[in-house]
Amino acid sequence: MNRNNDILIPEDYSGRILNGNYTAELKKRVEDLLNIYRAFEKTGNPAMPYVSAWHEEEMKIWYEFASGRFVGLMDCKISELADVLRESVKDRIIYRHPDTDASIEKKVFSSSELIAEREKLREEGRKEGIDAVYKICRNKTKSIWLKDVAAVETYKEDRISLSLGYLTIVTKEMKAEEERLEKERLHVLLEMAGAVCHELNQPMQAISGYSESLVMNINKDDPLYVKLTKIMELAQAMGNITGKLMKITRYETKDYIRGIKIIDIDKSSGQNT
Amino acid sequence: MNRNNDILIPEDYSGRILNGNYTAELKKRVEDLLNIYRAFEKTGNPAMPYVSAWHEEEMKIWYEFASGRFVGLMDCKISELADVLRESVKDRIIYRHPDTDASIEKKVFSSSELIAEREKLREEGRKEGIDAVYKICRNKTKSIWLKDVAAVETYKEDRISLSLGYLTIVTKEMKAEEERLEKERLHVLLEMAGAVCHELNQPMQAISGYSESLVMNINKDDPLYVKLTKIMELAQAMGNITGKLMKITRYETKDYIRGIKIIDIDKSSGQNT
Repeated sequence: MNRNNDILIPEDYSGRILNGNYTAELKKRVEDLLNIYRAFEKTGNPAMPYVSAWHEEEMKIWYEFASGRFVGLMDCKISELADVLRESVKDRIIYRHPDTDASIEKKVFSSSELIAEREKLREEGRKEGIDAVYKICRNKTKSIWLKDVAAVETYKEDRISLSLGYLTIVTKEMKAEEERLEKERLHVLLEMAGAVCHELNQPMQAISGYSESLVMNINKDDPLYVKLTKIMELAQAMGNITGKLMKITRYETKDYIRGIKIIDIDKSSGQNT
Repeated sequence: MNRNNDILIPEDYSGRILNGNYTAELKKRVEDLLNIYRAFEKTGNPAMPYVSAWHEEEMKIWYEFASGRFVGLMDCKISELADVLRESVKDRIIYRHPDTDASIEKKVFSSSELIAEREKLREEGRKEGIDAVYKICRNKTKSIWLKDVAAVETYKEDRISLSLGYLTIVTKEMKAEEERLEKERLHVLLEMAGAVCHELNQPMQAISGYSESLVMNINKDDPLYVKLTKIMELAQAMGNITGKLMKITRYETKDYIRGIKIIDIDKSSGQNT
């Protein structure tokens, strides 16, 4: 430990505040937080607490403390953590209106939007605390989702904000949502295919039956013959389409008009793949 | 503070171990955990840590420490917390296979299944730690979802297990999943309605056209007249059905056969409601 203005600085400290030109109040606060968060982590509790900091005039965030589990998850040094995290965040998901009866709005910020909206998000954090989910992709390996909950303290004289938070791995919850959506899409597709066939097969087969019997009992030279043959063929073509509906095994769409997509019945039923 | 075998017992302590007949090792551990978790909570970090305990031969869990935020959320005394929580848990969701490439299996235990499977779940927790989401409904007010992550330590001589964990409110994430499913169902329904109409409208209208022109140009006494009229009427009936498909605004199903459901086209398109 190095002593600096009565502040004990741990050997492996890689923050900035304890060594920097800041008020005794802020330094004491960071020293206390470091001691308490280290002790908390040592108990074996799986929570991943952190203390991050930023200066009002700088765009950079850095970590005064980060749980060893969090650093291990990001596979980097604690001094690189803020950069690595910023580069690895693919999406940041914020949910609005959670406490009202209005429906929850899920807002996903891509990494480029995050840069553009950084100041606004930081201002929101200062006022209301932080509550977001990050989709993180590190070194092209599997994605992980981290939920970040934090309270923000501001030290006016130092122009420093501290974020006291913790991270929770919510990969399972978020991936299960993706998989459930996938299943539900196919489920609805089959329910709709069933309904369409149920409603249309009977009249279609009746048209087929009537037109076939008419074609069989009419002379090829009869002026009605051509139109009746057309009707018979069209009814058979429709039967082929409902036949495909009954073979649907996948959810596949194709572009229709003006950005609207429709189900690709051929691909969904395993034809023309 | 009361002194008991060199253990400092906080006035508001409502656990059992510090006052009970347990080893000095366990008592010292609980005392340390209490001090560290209290200090951690006082920093203002929004994490909700807890230390729960259970005795091998008893079915009851109790709390040695619970974050004030957690107790406040459950709106009870800390001594009642385990009972209140058990009574309030509607579902316990466990995700399996999260670390393999296999798809995530989401297992929901209802409160009655939880009672039946309690021993098994407890044994799993002892081995692998705890990672679950609880759907909690307290006093018939709105549901909240809590994610519970914990490590379990066992003190053989005392026959006591300690669960060192923390809770995260994941209501927004879980409710957003419900709402997203709801939206996605309607979305798929409309994509399918679009596809069916796109494929079937053309042959259907052609049949309608041919049969109408045939009916108009044939004598009512002609033996073909009845069948042609039937074809025309059936084509019109099919047109009514695809017309309903284009007016779908809701996801509504009806029972079909053997537990299979199909879309209720009338209800979904706002007819016969």
